[in-house]
Amino acid sequence: MAKSKTVQDSEVTMTEMVLPNDTNTLNNLMGGRLMHWMDVVAAISAQRHSNCLVVTASVDTISFDNPIALGNVVTLHAVTTRAFNSSMEIYIEVYAEDIPACKKEKTHQAFFTFVAVDKSGKPLRVPEIVPTTPKEVELYEGALRRRQLRLVLANRMDPKDAIELQALFNNQNTDKA
Amino acid sequence: MAKSKTVQDSEVTMTEMVLPNDTNTLNNLMGGRLMHWMDVVAAISAQRHSNCLVVTASVDTISFDNPIALGNVVTLHAVTTRAFNSSMEIYIEVYAEDIPACKKEKTHQAFFTFVAVDKSGKPLRVPEIVPTTPKEVELYEGALRRRQLRLVLANRMDPKDAIELQALFNNQNTDKA
Amino acid sequence: MAKSKTVQDSEVTMTEMVLPNDTNTLNNLMGGRLMHWMDVVAAISAQRHSNCLVVTASVDTISFDNPIALGNVVTLHAVTTRAFNSSMEIYIEVYAEDIPACKKEKTHQAFFTFVAVDKSGKPLRVPEIVPTTPKEVELYEGALRRRQLRLVLANRMDPKDAIELQALFNNQNTDKA
Amino acid sequence: MAKSKTVQDSEVTMTEMVLPNDTNTLNNLMGGRLMHWMDVVAAISAQRHSNCLVVTASVDTISFDNPIALGNVVTLHAVTTRAFNSSMEIYIEVYAEDIPACKKEKTHQAFFTFVAVDKSGKPLRVPEIVPTTPKEVELYEGALRRRQLRLVLANRMDPKDAIELQALFNNQNTDKA
Amino acid sequence: MAKSKTVQDSEVTMTEMVLPNDTNTLNNLMGGRLMHWMDVVAAISAQRHSNCLVVTASVDTISFDNPIALGNVVTLHAVTTRAFNSSMEIYIEVYAEDIPACKKEKTHQAFFTFVAVDKSGKPLRVPEIVPTTPKEVELYEGALRRRQLRLVLANRMDPKDAIELQALFNNQNTDKA
Amino acid sequence: MAKSKTVQDSEVTMTEMVLPNDTNTLNNLMGGRLMHWMDVVAAISAQRHSNCLVVTASVDTISFDNPIALGNVVTLHAVTTRAFNSSMEIYIEVYAEDIPACKKEKTHQAFFTFVAVDKSGKPLRVPEIVPTTPKEVELYEGALRRRQLRLVLANRMDPKDAIELQALFNNQNTDKA
Repeated sequence: MAKSKTVQDSEVTMTEMVLPNDTNTLNNLMGGRLMHWMDVVAAISAQRHSNCLVVTASVDTISFDNPIALGNVVTLHAVTTRAFNSSMEIYIEVYAEDIPACKKEKTHQAFFTFVAVDKSGKPLRVPEIVPTTPKEVELYEGALRRRQLRLVLANRMDPKDAIELQALFNNQNTDKA
Repeated sequence: MAKSKTVQDSEVTMTEMVLPNDTNTLNNLMGGRLMHWMDVVAAISAQRHSNCLVVTASVDTISFDNPIALGNVVTLHAVTTRAFNSSMEIYIEVYAEDIPACKKEKTHQAFFTFVAVDKSGKPLRVPEIVPTTPKEVELYEGALRRRQLRLVLANRMDPKDAIELQALFNNQNTDKA
Repeated sequence: MAKSKTVQDSEVTMTEMVLPNDTNTLNNLMGGRLMHWMDVVAAISAQRHSNCLVVTASVDTISFDNPIALGNVVTLHAVTTRAFNSSMEIYIEVYAEDIPACKKEKTHQAFFTFVAVDKSGKPLRVPEIVPTTPKEVELYEGALRRRQLRLVLANRMDPKDAIELQALFNNQNTDKA
Repeated sequence: MAKSKTVQDSEVTMTEMVLPNDTNTLNNLMGGRLMHWMDVVAAISAQRHSNCLVVTASVDTISFDNPIALGNVVTLHAVTTRAFNSSMEIYIEVYAEDIPACKKEKTHQAFFTFVAVDKSGKPLRVPEIVPTTPKEVELYEGALRRRQLRLVLANRMDPKDAIELQALFNNQNTDKA
Repeated sequence: MAKSKTVQDSEVTMTEMVLPNDTNTLNNLMGGRLMHWMDVVAAISAQRHSNCLVVTASVDTISFDNPIALGNVVTLHAVTTRAFNSSMEIYIEVYAEDIPACKKEKTHQAFFTFVAVDKSGKPLRVPEIVPTTPKEVELYEGALRRRQLRLVLANRMDPKDAIELQALFNNQNTDKA
Repeated sequence: MAKSKTVQDSEVTMTEMVLPNDTNTLNNLMGGRLMHWMDVVAAISAQRHSNCLVVTASVDTISFDNPIALGNVVTLHAVTTRAFNSSMEIYIEVYAEDIPACKKEKTHQAFFTFVAVDKSGKPLRVPEIVPTTPKEVELYEGALRRRQLRLVLANRMDPKDAIELQALFNNQNTDKA
């Protein structure tokens, strides 16, 4: 197994068209369908990083501010941001395009966590990530804070020990967690 | 429009069987499929509370600790816990059953937020929730803290103003957010 | 194995939204899709009663008088009404809701029969049903007449021996079979 | 509109392969999926006979005696047997084939009733059927008895008036209803 | 194994309704869905001819000149035209019907090639085809030319050796390849 | 409308996982499912090039030499190679990966033709392609020969006039058409 891999090694692009059965009564993509697609693209990124079978461990808070319309082309882009022993954080950006109208915008972002496992479901150690670009470094560093939030929310860490997370409450101009 | 409604008014039970196409390589339910089902059951609960069209606004952190096997019966139970103007928080519990083996366990829980809208997508005011049982009261009260966390994570609230949320960091034995 | 179980032990509620691909040219739910959902909810009820694998044995006459529109929420409620050795009769009620319009009505009812089997498909004996409410008793008692009709229609019983069924032809105010 | 049409005018053949998601835990075709296919093939036959939109009105008792295995080829053959004003009875035969094993057998038969409607759902008169072969004549004549049974079961006909149906109870060697 | 079989032995008819999720933004059947259906009907024809498992080997050029509308009934008709050792050429005709409008037309035709294989994927010899009607003979004879074109396009035959194919370039009034 | 665009402007990457219902009896991806995915990815590329609605016009001969196994990740990569008035040729490469086994290979390639249309289905003129890399130039130049083959096969061009195509028969070491 490689000791470390780059973020690019785990890059995945998935493209979907919004079909009638994917939409709600307002003719917009249902949130549940989008999360399903996010889970698939993130799982492939985690597989690429670990070269293992992977299972979804958690998904962080996702906001659905921007509706995506029937007929739009949806592009999901996923990378692995950081590894912690057998778990990997995956960052997903979602873009929606109305191609005939020449409109494309980033509509959603999400963080999923996956665990690498063998065929019996036992966790396996995965390579570390070596971030290189400024954006990769920012995602890598924020991963620790997001991990503490997940552990606190799951009652697996005492909030008093979540040093990185507490910084969130002392920094007015923080980026999205 | 009713000024207030009970939690029972918005109760929804959904039952699904895990079929081959719902599973990953380990023959367990894929996280994305489960989130899709959660979104549907939560949308129906929010419709029941508001008697309006609704759109998914956000989903809170979800942990996927317990795998659900191919052939299992999955029961999703959703209730509206609290309303804030036009938005509603929905609480979902997921149970997996291996009926021939007489095994049933709670495997997942999640909080989704929906907004009531008219046909043009404009938000509509919804009734308030009147919680009655101790569990309903606990969900109702926790809803404020979870809302502050969502707003902080979405950069819409200064963490210093998230009074309820800060309590989380002063209480070691807190329940899941 | 329990010698007998209550009707409540086998209760199942399933909730579905009518999506575009479920509808015919009039934008109403197709009968075939509804029967598919009925079969799933009934199979789960039969599993709950028997704690066994089950296979569909027969479906009784179903009328489709009430159309269900695109976007409606469909609730299917199933209970096991009576057991005969290895076979179980399941009663299904279907409700359609147009939630924004605050309309909910019972649209369909059906009786399915399932057989409990082991992994090789061999029939297994199942517990008896002990009906308690008047409605449960009525369903339990009618089950014998409906069973005779099924056997006569399948040429497995001489109509002259179908004592219960013949009562149907001497009783003008009979309920649906 | 033609005053009458032949049975052949409404013949439809549909072929499906049993895929993993169509099967239950025993790897056999689920009854609900088969009824869905029956509804589609019968609707097309009723359309062919009436040259109208059609909606499912009822399905008669169906027995599921013969399991159909994963990978089998399923052939559904439908014809319109008789018309009553705006309603049509459709007869469906189902054949399952394990082609590599050179096995083909008739596994199921069913009777569906459809009503021809205009775009607002109002019933439309349809042509009569002129049966020609002995089998077509038998199906045509039995249609009256089956119709009486449907009306009695739906509480729309007093069993005492169901002359054709009563013959069923005086004839030990009757064919399937 | 039979040494030879007729074209009729491999006849298959498949009928599908065009549902919302099968259509593009113009409400016409998507080409990809139609090719999927073609592949299924052709595979069944090849199974009927060979009584073996079969895998798709190639598809010839297909033109999509005639759109098929939402709600249309699509009939696919497939026959095996000729066998070459373990491979079979299948000819598919597609008809679209707007039944309420009494319109039916042939919209597409295609040639697929399948190979008969055992469970390990090893090719198996298949019976020869004995064409009888003039149309069957024409399809049988053209199969050789189409096969040479496939081999040339796949770089498995020197165009100079494609005797039958070269005739194509010396005959102005040729039928579709 | 831009007078010309680069090949990169129309690049699309689509990623799919092979699920149970996508596979045949040998547990390999069915050809029909792959063609469906090819059609979707090619349509998006043609939309990107033309900024119009597009409809499938034709698909060239495709060989299915390499099976793709259940659980594999399939990457489809599409670019527009050349435009002819309102039609565009799209080149698709398909890669299959068994990620845990660290195996990735190119398994298929295909050429689809799409036509840009307005909402009534009337063809619209599209920008020209300016190829830059040697591979883009090779695809651009070959597009003329492939177009002549399509026209000859569709009886729209006299083979004697297909100058580019005839070169195919005078060049033993030709690449795939």
